Amino acid sequence: MKTALVGVTGYGGMVLYQLLQQHPAVTEINLYGHSQTTDQPLSEAVPMFGISATAMIHPYDVATIMAANDVVFFATSAGVTSQVAAPFIAAGFPVIDLSGDYRLKQPATYEKWYHKPAAPQAALDAAYYGLAEFGQVGSAKYVANPGCYATATLLGLAPLAQNDLIQPDSIVVDAKSGTSGAGKKLATSTHFSQTNENLQLYKVDQHQHIPEIMQQLQAWNPEIPAIEFTTTLIPVTRGIMSTIYAKVKPGTTAEQLVAAFETTYQHADFVRFGATLPMLKQVQGTNFCDLGLQYNPVTHNVTVVSVIDNLIKGAGGQAIQNLNQMFGLDAAAGLPTHVIMP
Amino acid sequence: MKTALVGVTGYGGMVLYQLLQQHPAVTEINLYGHSQTTDQPLSEAVPMFGISATAMIHPYDVATIMAANDVVFFATSAGVTSQVAAPFIAAGFPVIDLSGDYRLKQPATYEKWYHKPAAPQAALDAAYYGLAEFGQVGSAKYVANPGCYATATLLGLAPLAQNDLIQPDSIVVDAKSGTSGAGKKLATSTHFSQTNENLQLYKVDQHQHIPEIMQQLQAWNPEIPAIEFTTTLIPVTRGIMSTIYAKVKPGTTAEQLVAAFETTYQHADFVRFGATLPMLKQVQGTNFCDLGLQYNPVTHNVTVVSVIDNLIKGAGGQAIQNLNQMFGLDAAAGLPTHVIMP
Amino acid sequence: MKTALVGVTGYGGMVLYQLLQQHPAVTEINLYGHSQTTDQPLSEAVPMFGISATAMIHPYDVATIMAANDVVFFATSAGVTSQVAAPFIAAGFPVIDLSGDYRLKQPATYEKWYHKPAAPQAALDAAYYGLAEFGQVGSAKYVANPGCYATATLLGLAPLAQNDLIQPDSIVVDAKSGTSGAGKKLATSTHFSQTNENLQLYKVDQHQHIPEIMQQLQAWNPEIPAIEFTTTLIPVTRGIMSTIYAKVKPGTTAEQLVAAFETTYQHADFVRFGATLPMLKQVQGTNFCDLGLQYNPVTHNVTVVSVIDNLIKGAGGQAIQNLNQMFGLDAAAGLPTHVIMP
Amino acid sequence: MKTALVGVTGYGGMVLYQLLQQHPAVTEINLYGHSQTTDQPLSEAVPMFGISATAMIHPYDVATIMAANDVVFFATSAGVTSQVAAPFIAAGFPVIDLSGDYRLKQPATYEKWYHKPAAPQAALDAAYYGLAEFGQVGSAKYVANPGCYATATLLGLAPLAQNDLIQPDSIVVDAKSGTSGAGKKLATSTHFSQTNENLQLYKVDQHQHIPEIMQQLQAWNPEIPAIEFTTTLIPVTRGIMSTIYAKVKPGTTAEQLVAAFETTYQHADFVRFGATLPMLKQVQGTNFCDLGLQYNPVTHNVTVVSVIDNLIKGAGGQAIQNLNQMFGLDAAAGLPTHVIMP
Repeated sequence: MKTALVGVTGYGGMVLYQLLQQHPAVTEINLYGHSQTTDQPLSEAVPMFGISATAMIHPYDVATIMAANDVVFFATSAGVTSQVAAPFIAAGFPVIDLSGDYRLKQPATYEKWYHKPAAPQAALDAAYYGLAEFGQVGSAKYVANPGCYATATLLGLAPLAQNDLIQPDSIVVDAKSGTSGAGKKLATSTHFSQTNENLQLYKVDQHQHIPEIMQQLQAWNPEIPAIEFTTTLIPVTRGIMSTIYAKVKPGTTAEQLVAAFETTYQHADFVRFGATLPMLKQVQGTNFCDLGLQYNPVTHNVTVVSVIDNLIKGAGGQAIQNLNQMFGLDAAAGLPTHVIMP
Repeated sequence: MKTALVGVTGYGGMVLYQLLQQHPAVTEINLYGHSQTTDQPLSEAVPMFGISATAMIHPYDVATIMAANDVVFFATSAGVTSQVAAPFIAAGFPVIDLSGDYRLKQPATYEKWYHKPAAPQAALDAAYYGLAEFGQVGSAKYVANPGCYATATLLGLAPLAQNDLIQPDSIVVDAKSGTSGAGKKLATSTHFSQTNENLQLYKVDQHQHIPEIMQQLQAWNPEIPAIEFTTTLIPVTRGIMSTIYAKVKPGTTAEQLVAAFETTYQHADFVRFGATLPMLKQVQGTNFCDLGLQYNPVTHNVTVVSVIDNLIKGAGGQAIQNLNQMFGLDAAAGLPTHVIMP
Repeated sequence: MKTALVGVTGYGGMVLYQLLQQHPAVTEINLYGHSQTTDQPLSEAVPMFGISATAMIHPYDVATIMAANDVVFFATSAGVTSQVAAPFIAAGFPVIDLSGDYRLKQPATYEKWYHKPAAPQAALDAAYYGLAEFGQVGSAKYVANPGCYATATLLGLAPLAQNDLIQPDSIVVDAKSGTSGAGKKLATSTHFSQTNENLQLYKVDQHQHIPEIMQQLQAWNPEIPAIEFTTTLIPVTRGIMSTIYAKVKPGTTAEQLVAAFETTYQHADFVRFGATLPMLKQVQGTNFCDLGLQYNPVTHNVTVVSVIDNLIKGAGGQAIQNLNQMFGLDAAAGLPTHVIMP
Repeated sequence: MKTALVGVTGYGGMVLYQLLQQHPAVTEINLYGHSQTTDQPLSEAVPMFGISATAMIHPYDVATIMAANDVVFFATSAGVTSQVAAPFIAAGFPVIDLSGDYRLKQPATYEKWYHKPAAPQAALDAAYYGLAEFGQVGSAKYVANPGCYATATLLGLAPLAQNDLIQPDSIVVDAKSGTSGAGKKLATSTHFSQTNENLQLYKVDQHQHIPEIMQQLQAWNPEIPAIEFTTTLIPVTRGIMSTIYAKVKPGTTAEQLVAAFETTYQHADFVRFGATLPMLKQVQGTNFCDLGLQYNPVTHNVTVVSVIDNLIKGAGGQAIQNLNQMFGLDAAAGLPTHVIMP
């Protein structure tokens, strides 16, 4: 399979490129830069790849991309993808899009949370939201790959929401993220002297992954009216931990909670539900989402802890899962399971 | 004033010693080691003090301590203080105790959460819980200095609980702590290769500061039945952030919430309530507890963020506040306000 | 190929196990624990592997290991391997040993630096020192895999020493290491609250890799009498940087220095010599040793910077290189080249 | 004493401001911003000071500064101070300058290393280089406060250079610095996702503190022709470690080396020479420079380790030492000795 990748210089693109290189069915990876006019060596654009990275990044050109590839990945920023993806949609050319531009079905919702113009309604309708454990790409040609916070949070909430085990208005999500989620762009909040030895909340109640989470949650359980969702930047490079709190419905037992998780994920290759609460480190470098829960009989609260590598399960890894579905490959093909440790 | 300090070799004791050295009313600091039989140079017991630390640590002896000092601080572990403090209580000698041994009024509660024998009921009755912003030591001779998590959490909840602004069964506390809270004792969870780049939950629903928080909350507002309380170890040395969530009572406005915090702390020297959510770094090295809040009109949730330096406001600094109250000194005497930055 | 691994629970063993799992020629990996008496699940012995690690660790038994495997890896500690390896040596069974027990040819040298009894002289004579870029295992049956500091330092010094470009008594090596080099064993120097925000020198002039480096350097250039070698523990989990200083011989030019490095490593798969000084991060997760140099015409000093992932190129990765040589496999088989980034 | 501080918003200025607040002889601190046109609240310019920082930063005006203050501190960048300091020099008004603009006596040297126009020769001649342990400000009115790397390195080399104990062309300095030395300015090298888990060399053989070190070293010992000096950025916020290597002169003993350090610093309040090599953490937050040495009889090399807090002893703390000298105050007045620990 020949694959195109637009946007290899961002953190998400870098990691996706590495994953594609390890994929057994991918024979060719062609790199394109949205704002480039001439070829540029990858080793120059991303020095951290080292001098052994001899690939070239080519200028972005729709016709060239379609002619030379079977599928295109967009690892471009929100607001950029929707400006360049139209010809692919029109042509029915396979696209896997890591940006947030086609995840929300309502243009007004997108514009409210992203503060940018939305893609056309018809394109939004055609896009498939690729939360890999809950659906199949099928014949869809445009996959909107879920956001990192959304992935960690939805996988932690799915068994509760789908099985109607919690009080719908009681969900609180305290999500913690490493700095790679904020990308390469320099900012005061990610300046080492400020980030190190610090904890910083940001975008409280305003994170753009909130509507994406709500859209999916309500598809599962329309009674859920809203969630409380905060994000805290931690002095770690990679990973997200979503700590999820909810009151269980009267009569719900700890055993029912555990059973719901076990049943939901019994056939999932990349979601592991264990007897202990997971730590962040056990998923770094992998496509796993690790889950654990604890029920508190005093407060009738269930605490679910969900950890992922934001750049793999929360981005490029899930994109590969969607690629595998789209082309009928083995579900686990090309996906990393070896944790970075220590 | 002549002061005794038992337990200078732990992190809490080290920092308290530094604070005592800077206190204008303290003329003498005598160090004692609970398990020592001969004098030991401080520079040897705590190399990080450097060779200029020429003080000696003396063997622990009740009569000597009483004869040579006006007050004794215990920076010993839970379970140790209650074994050695009885003669001081009997004599009515002033004690400020940083351990958890005399914070809880019910021996059974102590034994349930600490898994150790409790102090006698009479001694527990006589002890004063020294949450510095909410009371005065007065004529009490035995001050139980609050725990670090309890301090951050109670200061964040006080205006809400006292003014009856929240639904009593809706409180969720997601507390994050640096590693110094776990002390000098070596453990896998604080081994650098494991702690670094990691987030680890521990003692979920089982942290021994939970009953201390509940005891005080119910004194303020008996309707509060319980709280959900989790603790996450973060790769930072110093500091605690308590992120507190609660549903407000119907009709409560954002303005009322802000007003409650402003009123509660208008005369507090060391609690700062600001317009933005605080970051952890802005209190490291100080005795401040910084607070901020955000009201979410969609979920009717109020999020309160409370940050402290666990070893100062959460331990030695608050102990100094209690010293100042006990001896009628200026409330801010000897307390650090200069943040470590960057 | 069927492989045995003794000592999977240490950091070196964990990473070697992951590498063996990715090796295309390895069909079976059997785990053995030196001090175990019954089977133990890997997921229990090393929780960070996660619940998907279903392998078992078996009790150590020489006959079983020989019967069931084609080669055995020892990831056991110095002093342990020499106690258990004798039967394998006697039988001519293939061994790759990651400990320091068979690296030094002189028993007295081993005993001086390791403070333990040395292996017998005959066994030391038979062992092959497997610095992968400088030799071939050939018919040797016992490979002593080089130490991490030795690997980084020797690869940086080889072109200078072999080509006689530097004043032999002028070598200074300032090596920096992350904490994983110190292993899982708890220690004050690797307690997070002490390691974090700190730099700590240790074993100055006394590190046990010094004699190993000298033995190889003198094989290349007998005029080198000694090196100055310090080690500093840095608040990073993985990686070693060796910063190497030496005075060049009169008349040596920058061009000659560069040419020596380029020539030496022109056919090396895993040593990359670049135009800029490498940073540590560019090799984490890979088997690369990245090198760069700068010549100072004012001081006539050449500075060489050598970076490796201590657990891969400095341990398990080089062990795989030696496996590949031993069994005539492709030199790069099973070796990781994808950097962990960001 | 009334003091003016120009440049409080940089890291150096922030810390100097805190030190001045703690100085017993300083009754007034007036803040000025070089590029400001109206008053600005300090809490707004430097949010990390918190809302309790009620001071104002005033626009920069020479006449106002002279009229309202007894001394002015410049915590402005190199290239800025020399543009604004002339009127103060002309008036003989006391200045303590933390920039590098007046440290070098030769304009050509400044221009070569700083890539900016130098101050006039007469002004350079009049400036006093304030390495606090080696001289007295006396009647000088313009103090050029030494650089951070220069301070750590010169204090480590002084006993060796002054007593002629080392081979003059053999000095190698491997200096490591935390990120605060690079200031608040955003840069890729200090972006958390790049700095964390990394070691990065920068400005090898080109750091602007090299000529300052050489100027002072040659004043002590004209035989020293040059030094090899590298700088490595480490994932730590505060502190510098200079590891210094040199060959001793034939016949020099370890005892002579130790004696030279002990004699040199026997009356120094802020240089501590100890029996063990210091770690970085033991000086953070203090004005101490801690030194240790080890002699290697095999290589005839002496290794000196020198650690400082770059923002205190390497900047604001030494500025206070110079203030104390200039105004005849107690040498230790206002200087912090309490280490940040853990």
